Amino acid sequence: MLYQHGTLGTLIAGMLQGTTSIGEVTKHGDFGIGTLDGSDGEVVILDGNAYHANAQGEFKALTGEELTPFATVTDFQTDETINVRHITDAEALLAQTKRRAASDNIFFAVKMTGKFEMMHVRMMPKEEPPYRRLSEVAKNQPEFTREQVEGTIVGFYAPQLFHGIAAGGYHLHFVDDDRTFGGHVLDFEMNSGTIEINNIDTLQQHLPSNDAQFMGADIDYSNIAQEISETE
Amino acid sequence: MLYQHGTLGTLIAGMLQGTTSIGEVTKHGDFGIGTLDGSDGEVVILDGNAYHANAQGEFKALTGEELTPFATVTDFQTDETINVRHITDAEALLAQTKRRAASDNIFFAVKMTGKFEMMHVRMMPKEEPPYRRLSEVAKNQPEFTREQVEGTIVGFYAPQLFHGIAAGGYHLHFVDDDRTFGGHVLDFEMNSGTIEINNIDTLQQHLPSNDAQFMGADIDYSNIAQEISETE
Repeated sequence: MLYQHGTLGTLIAGMLQGTTSIGEVTKHGDFGIGTLDGSDGEVVILDGNAYHANAQGEFKALTGEELTPFATVTDFQTDETINVRHITDAEALLAQTKRRAASDNIFFAVKMTGKFEMMHVRMMPKEEPPYRRLSEVAKNQPEFTREQVEGTIVGFYAPQLFHGIAAGGYHLHFVDDDRTFGGHVLDFEMNSGTIEINNIDTLQQHLPSNDAQFMGADIDYSNIAQEISETE
Repeated sequence: MLYQHGTLGTLIAGMLQGTTSIGEVTKHGDFGIGTLDGSDGEVVILDGNAYHANAQGEFKALTGEELTPFATVTDFQTDETINVRHITDAEALLAQTKRRAASDNIFFAVKMTGKFEMMHVRMMPKEEPPYRRLSEVAKNQPEFTREQVEGTIVGFYAPQLFHGIAAGGYHLHFVDDDRTFGGHVLDFEMNSGTIEINNIDTLQQHLPSNDAQFMGADIDYSNIAQEISETE
């Protein structure tokens, strides 16, 4: 079971206010990704612990009380394991990983643990109200690159039909073993490590019905698929 | 909680084989809609009982053993009740109903019980393998009209962002009180009756991971939003 609070489409449309707590989200899974109130940075959840990378390059553990507008989690269970070495083409590795998953037509969680020769991430800058659409905010995203870093990529694959609710294809965040660095993964090279796949056939999609602003909004989704592709 | 097995998009793309049983679906809700193996006709589930209207105009109770590629159910609970009389404009009534729901941005189930001056339905004809895309099948859908009929409209509203997984907007089926007539609602006039709304903020979307054909398929969703609008 994949549990998601909020949708990527609603976030992209500029509904950036936090609508549930990280602690509420982690009740539904110990492994996942998200962002904080104001689309502030990148959340990564691993072994039930939540971390946050902001646009200033700061990294910290979360208490669980922080609010999030959008987060996706699962209780990770390993269905497939792939050992890899000397990966310089991340895109090819992700394509190979998808072929080892049960299908392109269901979800899967992916955990990539190992030594990375290079890790290239970005962090979404926190936006203050009145919020702009995320495709505008995303035009100025700080990017960071680390070399020789050990850690874990935490993420999900969503079938193309779900592009809008999530990002169709992969959506990956990173956390290092020292818990000092992470973000939204743009590219990487991997010296050696392990890829684990968790095939998932059920999405539990929760919408923020407690949030008056969301409930009352007239949300413009007319160009959402393209905006998501540009922003992510 | 709204429970859905399969997606409308996958059905529209021609994956018409039944992938779970009606009895399995009704474990997740006593109120809902669907179709049978081969996109055969229109299923309506009311008070935990499932019925089927086929393209020959036949209507029968289902045993629960029948297979379905796509069905949506909830355990219906009434949040809002509207009493109505002398409705000749179904579209205006549905717009009014939506304004009484909690939001356009979450799901709701709608139950419309009463005396209908006119009920205009269609039934999707059963398709045999190799299946065509549903937009092709739908070009020859028998339509039926009954006058002076008592019964219940059973259906759902989905937010526009979910167009693809479901039909954005309303998707309504009908069953008469005598359990002799029903189908997919195209239009109606209502003499008097009651509209009940059940606001729903969580979708549990189940994909048919037990079906090798679905799992292995290269599904073309490139024009799916428009195909759904044309077909439904």
